[in-house]
Amino acid sequence: MNLLIQDIPIIPVTEPGLIIKKGYIVVEGDKITDIGNGTAPDGNYDYVIRGNNRLAIPGMVNTHTHAAMTLLRGYADDMPLMEWLEQKIWPLEAKLRADDIFWGTKLALIEMIKSGTTAFADMYFAMGKVAQAVEEAGIRGVLARGMIGVGPENDKAFQETVQLFENWHQKAAGRITIMLGPHAPYTCPPEYMKRVEKLAADLRIGIQVHVAETRAEVDDINKMYGKTPVEYLEDLGLFNHRVIASHCVYLTPADIMTLKKYDVGVAHNPESNMKLASGIAPVPAMLNAGITVGIGTDGASSNNNLDMIQEMRSCSLLHKVNSMDPTVIPAYQALEMATKMGAKVLGLEHETGQLKPGFKADIVLLRLDGAHMCPSHDYLANLVYAAQASDVDTVIVNGKIIMENKIITTLDETEVLHQCRKIARRLVS
Amino acid sequence: MNLLIQDIPIIPVTEPGLIIKKGYIVVEGDKITDIGNGTAPDGNYDYVIRGNNRLAIPGMVNTHTHAAMTLLRGYADDMPLMEWLEQKIWPLEAKLRADDIFWGTKLALIEMIKSGTTAFADMYFAMGKVAQAVEEAGIRGVLARGMIGVGPENDKAFQETVQLFENWHQKAAGRITIMLGPHAPYTCPPEYMKRVEKLAADLRIGIQVHVAETRAEVDDINKMYGKTPVEYLEDLGLFNHRVIASHCVYLTPADIMTLKKYDVGVAHNPESNMKLASGIAPVPAMLNAGITVGIGTDGASSNNNLDMIQEMRSCSLLHKVNSMDPTVIPAYQALEMATKMGAKVLGLEHETGQLKPGFKADIVLLRLDGAHMCPSHDYLANLVYAAQASDVDTVIVNGKIIMENKIITTLDETEVLHQCRKIARRLVS
Repeated sequence: MNLLIQDIPIIPVTEPGLIIKKGYIVVEGDKITDIGNGTAPDGNYDYVIRGNNRLAIPGMVNTHTHAAMTLLRGYADDMPLMEWLEQKIWPLEAKLRADDIFWGTKLALIEMIKSGTTAFADMYFAMGKVAQAVEEAGIRGVLARGMIGVGPENDKAFQETVQLFENWHQKAAGRITIMLGPHAPYTCPPEYMKRVEKLAADLRIGIQVHVAETRAEVDDINKMYGKTPVEYLEDLGLFNHRVIASHCVYLTPADIMTLKKYDVGVAHNPESNMKLASGIAPVPAMLNAGITVGIGTDGASSNNNLDMIQEMRSCSLLHKVNSMDPTVIPAYQALEMATKMGAKVLGLEHETGQLKPGFKADIVLLRLDGAHMCPSHDYLANLVYAAQASDVDTVIVNGKIIMENKIITTLDETEVLHQCRKIARRLVS
Repeated sequence: MNLLIQDIPIIPVTEPGLIIKKGYIVVEGDKITDIGNGTAPDGNYDYVIRGNNRLAIPGMVNTHTHAAMTLLRGYADDMPLMEWLEQKIWPLEAKLRADDIFWGTKLALIEMIKSGTTAFADMYFAMGKVAQAVEEAGIRGVLARGMIGVGPENDKAFQETVQLFENWHQKAAGRITIMLGPHAPYTCPPEYMKRVEKLAADLRIGIQVHVAETRAEVDDINKMYGKTPVEYLEDLGLFNHRVIASHCVYLTPADIMTLKKYDVGVAHNPESNMKLASGIAPVPAMLNAGITVGIGTDGASSNNNLDMIQEMRSCSLLHKVNSMDPTVIPAYQALEMATKMGAKVLGLEHETGQLKPGFKADIVLLRLDGAHMCPSHDYLANLVYAAQASDVDTVIVNGKIIMENKIITTLDETEVLHQCRKIARRLVS
């Protein structure tokens, strides 16, 4: 399908601060073929979307979540971390069936699409079901079966990862990428991590891993190995592969140099780190060192939503006050982290995260006519500091319209919510 | 009008954690006369609202803003504080006409109503126009003419305050309260503050004042008077009146005891303090000391929205990470700060902020059917940690429905946005 979006302001996130005040985007098949100021060249377009008081931005990239944890949203909050995990989250997760994860993921995808996310990285289990949901929803997913070396499923996780890779890698019109998902340094001993590293080399795929999320983790790894979590992973050779390192709250200056040296992508989760009181990641220092830092929501049980607009705003505000410097992470940089840099964290930097000819057509249109978006002194500032998820109105992924005028065309929202409510009742019964 | 709301879950904010799972609220005239579990007593109701997948909460209270600064939203961001004020905000404010403030305030009121705020404290100028907008919109306003002792309008501010008091105090069906608005210790020298104190005594009204917002302010007041801002205000007798102290970012333990001693109400503005990198107020310490702490958004030029749902969430998350304790400001306490405690900060604790017989009918209904609100393990957690402004669906103030199904009935939204866009263009031309 050839699609034309015209008479619309555009923030392409191709260069700092660039805003096309009134322009057009041409989509042919799954790609953007032209973008510019003013009026589009004459052409034979199957479908035309007029700006009509909207703004076009690249689809956002959620670099770290556990999608199906939507089912646990609001089940347990305001608790100390280990008590929360041991008494609440893990017992409920133990009750999850593969089909629950299918529906819970769909619920997450609805929420993501509605708030302008078009690609995400996910680590959980029953990942075949997650892939199925991603295929159906039409968005882009970088999926990893969570692997816990110290748990009963340590071997099964390898088998399932290989199976997942064979069934789903580069499938769904190329929208699905499979990665390995060793959970964290403290749950994956060296021998296990070495097997992970070897499989990454064999399959030539990337790795998602939680790194230095809490002070306790850093202390434990230091006690066990006399290393920081980053040193532990470096020494095991993990950074020779594409790695998404989630959280990275506690880093030494040497750790930061290491992450930069290996071009490790960092998934920063400001709101989860705030809500669980994990700490504040040294994001300005990482950005200054040239590390690629994207933004993630983490799972809905520690956030409790998957709203990347709110997350990008929280990211900017948190680091301003933590640095005592209001110029830190200005609006453009926050948006860049949520789009272009997020795409690079996922290894999709040549496909998505920018509106640019040759890139996949992953495009989000937001309404500009809400009272909270008025006046329009600065589209960029309004987007990052004032916008709401509900301003997102139309979402295009891979050239396909998957939401138009707030109606998702690929999933049956009523059915998904109904199923998830039913599952939630069963989980707590 | 007699109004019945029925078959609806209710969080009345009358006692910790209380949730009525399915109940009713009866409104007669401007007051709540009955509230309870199950079905309402038979009666002659003029209008019945069924729950229909919604949640009822008290209208939220924004304890500190400068409403008409919506006109400056997104005009200048990510700048050092003094540069931002001197080069951007103040020059633009100098261009503001009384009529601009009328429209800019209406824009703010639309945004507030749409996000569930039913009462607010405002400090700005041309406050007669603000009062007019509040009267028209149907919400509750505690209004103060900003008074700057060191500025050219130092005397005029007194005259205008007296005039405002005479024209508007307790007017608009009792929805408007007038206060004095000495801007801050550093802009109001002792002689000026003494005049403020005297007028407060003469008129028997309260005082709104910015207190210890920045480290620089604390240093300046210390240099000038050898005191903390709180000591400065105490010594001038201000705390003998009802005071709304905004910000209170930098307080000594003795300051905290002083605020408690005089029952000063604190307006905490987490997002403004984050965005301007002012610092993090010692809110848990204030709450532990028994101080009444409400939540405020501050003006839209430093936030950049007036969304109290987002603000209450930010309040909880910020203090969790700042205390490194996930149990700090749990969901109920955040909601209490945004409603019941906010009402007390404004001196309206016997009128609003709770759903309770005898209280004014200031009621907000939020939709529960968004994907981000599913499942419903906990209405309270979903409200504080997952909800969006756009979930607010119906707003009742003083027994009158001022928004129903997201349509504001008291203001012409199209006209207000049109006027504000026109004004914004003139301001920057």
